[in-house]
Amino acid sequence: MFFVVGLGLCDEKDITVRGLEAVKSASRVYLEAYTSILMVQKDRLESFYGKEVIVADRDLVECGSDEILKDADKEDVCLLVVGDPFGATTHTDILLRARHLGIPTRVIHNASIMNAIGASGLQLYNFGQTVSLVFFTETWKPDSFYDRIKENTEGGLHTLLLLDIKVKEQNEENLARGRKIYEPPRYMTIRQAVTQLLEIEALRKEGVLDADKTLAVAMSRVGGLDDQRILAGPLTSFLRAPPDAFGPPLHSMIIVGKRLHHLEVEYGEVFAEALGEAIALSGFDMEGEGKEEHREKGKKEGRGRWREVASKVYGVALD
Amino acid sequence: MFFVVGLGLCDEKDITVRGLEAVKSASRVYLEAYTSILMVQKDRLESFYGKEVIVADRDLVECGSDEILKDADKEDVCLLVVGDPFGATTHTDILLRARHLGIPTRVIHNASIMNAIGASGLQLYNFGQTVSLVFFTETWKPDSFYDRIKENTEGGLHTLLLLDIKVKEQNEENLARGRKIYEPPRYMTIRQAVTQLLEIEALRKEGVLDADKTLAVAMSRVGGLDDQRILAGPLTSFLRAPPDAFGPPLHSMIIVGKRLHHLEVEYGEVFAEALGEAIALSGFDMEGEGKEEHREKGKKEGRGRWREVASKVYGVALD
Repeated sequence: MFFVVGLGLCDEKDITVRGLEAVKSASRVYLEAYTSILMVQKDRLESFYGKEVIVADRDLVECGSDEILKDADKEDVCLLVVGDPFGATTHTDILLRARHLGIPTRVIHNASIMNAIGASGLQLYNFGQTVSLVFFTETWKPDSFYDRIKENTEGGLHTLLLLDIKVKEQNEENLARGRKIYEPPRYMTIRQAVTQLLEIEALRKEGVLDADKTLAVAMSRVGGLDDQRILAGPLTSFLRAPPDAFGPPLHSMIIVGKRLHHLEVEYGEVFAEALGEAIALSGFDMEGEGKEEHREKGKKEGRGRWREVASKVYGVALD
Repeated sequence: MFFVVGLGLCDEKDITVRGLEAVKSASRVYLEAYTSILMVQKDRLESFYGKEVIVADRDLVECGSDEILKDADKEDVCLLVVGDPFGATTHTDILLRARHLGIPTRVIHNASIMNAIGASGLQLYNFGQTVSLVFFTETWKPDSFYDRIKENTEGGLHTLLLLDIKVKEQNEENLARGRKIYEPPRYMTIRQAVTQLLEIEALRKEGVLDADKTLAVAMSRVGGLDDQRILAGPLTSFLRAPPDAFGPPLHSMIIVGKRLHHLEVEYGEVFAEALGEAIALSGFDMEGEGKEEHREKGKKEGRGRWREVASKVYGVALD
């Protein structure tokens, strides 16, 4: 049997009991390691499973899938995938390949960013299509994301933005010379995302996004144990917060749609307070009571901004 | 700590390792048992956990949340939820309540129908808003779902339809007399859903749905081990299949949007074959070779219908 096992969002303990059984029964275990990033390293998985984990890069999954699938009709082989197996196209590819080879397959589901964004308190059924934001370059600033956000916001829907990840990139010289030397991984930050959004709004001027009147939620390490961060507020607030406020990557972002419910606003208040606090404490170096006061003031301001836009711009009736 | 733990989609083994640790450490474990239906019973959970599980019905979660949260500031309490904790509004309610009481909370994510529909091979980022279909009665046929499907299809997006569940319903007499006697649970079937969709199309006539030209995917027990069923074809095919073709509840359904990719079509071919097979074998009582031929013919027809509509109506270029 060929198993594709979702690992969930955070670390080795987010695998399901059923997934762990599949791993333990397998002759070979591969870890898909390029469409997403697990928050732990391979060696931690290996010591948790008590067996070797083979890292499968893009070349192996896309061009060498027959190597992964070898003998999977006679023994169990696992491919581990961060999140859920159906988060990225490539896994339907390898499942199709297994089907053509007559190899029985089983998918073991798990949480993925696509449903874990519920942690924002925004209702999943009010999300429209998901939009990917890619890094702009000097010469290449694709803006099709703007039309997709527009389609969602016109229907009052929330939009999940998946921020670009660059792993195993080669610079031009190494690419030209065929040297397998890679640049350090890059992850788009919330700040970069907001900047790109507002840059395209300034060009297109269709009023889809507004620095002060569009609410957003920033999430990092959703499902992480102690490092999950959720911040909420109007777009402009995200530019005022210090970079470290957003925590380590991966970052995702939600553009809040007009079909906003008062319970969603209420649930988001702590995230708005957290953003206000981060802004207030940025560059603030006083210790003691002054700091606590300043922190409370920041939280209150963050909550106030969130509620004000929700009620005045989004038309949500609040107490 | 108050834990809300997602159980995933199928049975006791779909809990994550982290979730299982939380259950084992808890003084009290509640099972939320009304916004969704687990495929296993409470006693199977109890023997797997080695501890008592208290069933929490709607009254307890909505009105008695303080009972559930009692002492959760001093000891660990778990609320188990089928799928992911953020599938239904009520869990944000109880998390808000905990927050107001100053009780620390932790959510342990899992797969839910919202991301497991990726098993259809349709790309999650091309889904629009999710739509609920409720049981029609003689006098009440709400059709707002039609507008929402229209919004999605106009953008070329897929639509997940969640089919109605009625549990703990009282008939009029028992309700009037205040007797807590409940009707047997009812689950909307794929056939009922398709019938309701086409009934509203016939009234509204806006061309959102077409019996022969709209493709759909029916899913039952997604994530189930041996009883997951996925069938695909034009709407009309679902009415020709025998009721048992769809397997036991829960059923979900996807209306396929025009932004369909050839890989999605290819991945769906086996599901189209399964629907064709079910239609061909319905009422067919011959045994032996004749049956095998008939089965193969049905599969071929199912695949043919799927590919034909995908290419001619949806405009997907296929080999």
